[in-house]
Amino acid sequence: MIYVVFVEPETPGNIGFLARTMKNFGLSDLVLINPCEIENDAYYKAMHAKEVITNRRTYDSLQDFIENEGIDFTVGTTGEAGGSYNVPRIAVTPEQFAEALNVTGKIAVVFGREGDGLTNKEISLCDVVVSIPTHEDYPILNISHAAAIVFYELFKKEKSYPVEELEEASTIEKNGLLDCMDEIIEKLGYPEHKSKNASLVFRRIIGRAFISGREAHTLKGTLRRINKRLIEK
Amino acid sequence: MIYVVFVEPETPGNIGFLARTMKNFGLSDLVLINPCEIENDAYYKAMHAKEVITNRRTYDSLQDFIENEGIDFTVGTTGEAGGSYNVPRIAVTPEQFAEALNVTGKIAVVFGREGDGLTNKEISLCDVVVSIPTHEDYPILNISHAAAIVFYELFKKEKSYPVEELEEASTIEKNGLLDCMDEIIEKLGYPEHKSKNASLVFRRIIGRAFISGREAHTLKGTLRRINKRLIEK
Repeated sequence: MIYVVFVEPETPGNIGFLARTMKNFGLSDLVLINPCEIENDAYYKAMHAKEVITNRRTYDSLQDFIENEGIDFTVGTTGEAGGSYNVPRIAVTPEQFAEALNVTGKIAVVFGREGDGLTNKEISLCDVVVSIPTHEDYPILNISHAAAIVFYELFKKEKSYPVEELEEASTIEKNGLLDCMDEIIEKLGYPEHKSKNASLVFRRIIGRAFISGREAHTLKGTLRRINKRLIEK
Repeated sequence: MIYVVFVEPETPGNIGFLARTMKNFGLSDLVLINPCEIENDAYYKAMHAKEVITNRRTYDSLQDFIENEGIDFTVGTTGEAGGSYNVPRIAVTPEQFAEALNVTGKIAVVFGREGDGLTNKEISLCDVVVSIPTHEDYPILNISHAAAIVFYELFKKEKSYPVEELEEASTIEKNGLLDCMDEIIEKLGYPEHKSKNASLVFRRIIGRAFISGREAHTLKGTLRRINKRLIEK
């Protein structure tokens, strides 16, 4: 179970955006620590995730929340990853965090104030700190953007298979394509090194193209037809 | 060079959030297609990235932009990844996209309207479509959240791997390939809808494969030779 905790939010709109991105990645348990008033803008920005806000829990402090809910694992987020001299803020990336997180139990992902992030005391309550790699010119992300990235990494990890039902062509289907193209190339009367190169280039392109099963089928149909017409010559 | 294109934005605040997340990940070239009025809220939400908005370019249509700026590679984003039956919207994940993109040249990452995304016509102008895996209950991300995730993947990749020298094939070289393949397909005696589909699939595959200039050259040689042999029949 994953709780999303927002410490002392100052802007209702950010609560709304956070709720929306939570639902986008299948999360529903929002906890607000000593928040600003929840105005209409929070619900407006949440769009189709209003119930995430309605079902929120509220606590006075991060420590209260951790103790009362019996949290097993607390993850802080920070825009200021410390160097080695600032041990509490030594951070992992969202990717490292998602890879490492195979914990069952109650997990809290904690986001700090819009202006000041989490205090050192709050950071010290965390088991791990996550920091998103950003450009040095402007390293501070909006809180809902940071959340979207962390949730995306968690979701990506949890779902072993990404976009839609779309099945990538199997190795067998792809090899079928390559074999077919090789037969065509053989008939072109190339010197051997040129044949080899043409075959290699086609193989690389197919390898890089994330070709779907359906596309492999269509392309193979085309290649077969080409091959047949070359034979009939 | 990476352009970030927002097609027909309706909300100044979203333009601001987009500008902020661009700067967070080291991007600065914003293009707005037929935008709403840029009100104060855009600059307010941009925080320390106001200059991204000030330096924006504006065009009347996506096609105008692509042609006028001489874009080499156009990447669409969509919340509605097609299944295998909707070829134009077959999509790769942000991670797959970032992994494949090791190119120089002018690249455009295109985000659609807040409500309706990109039209089919706009999608058809794209070489590849990126879709973020999300939860089925609420798959539609706020545009700046989607952008943050795509930029994050690009930035992550760029940081960990040096950009290759390998120059991506220019649009002209790629179009040459597509034309050549279309000539071949025409000779295959397919009914029209099959010809169209075969052509589209080839275009998609070439679009997604991040083909280098050298590879385009080799593949074109092969296609030309095939075409010639088909003529001689």
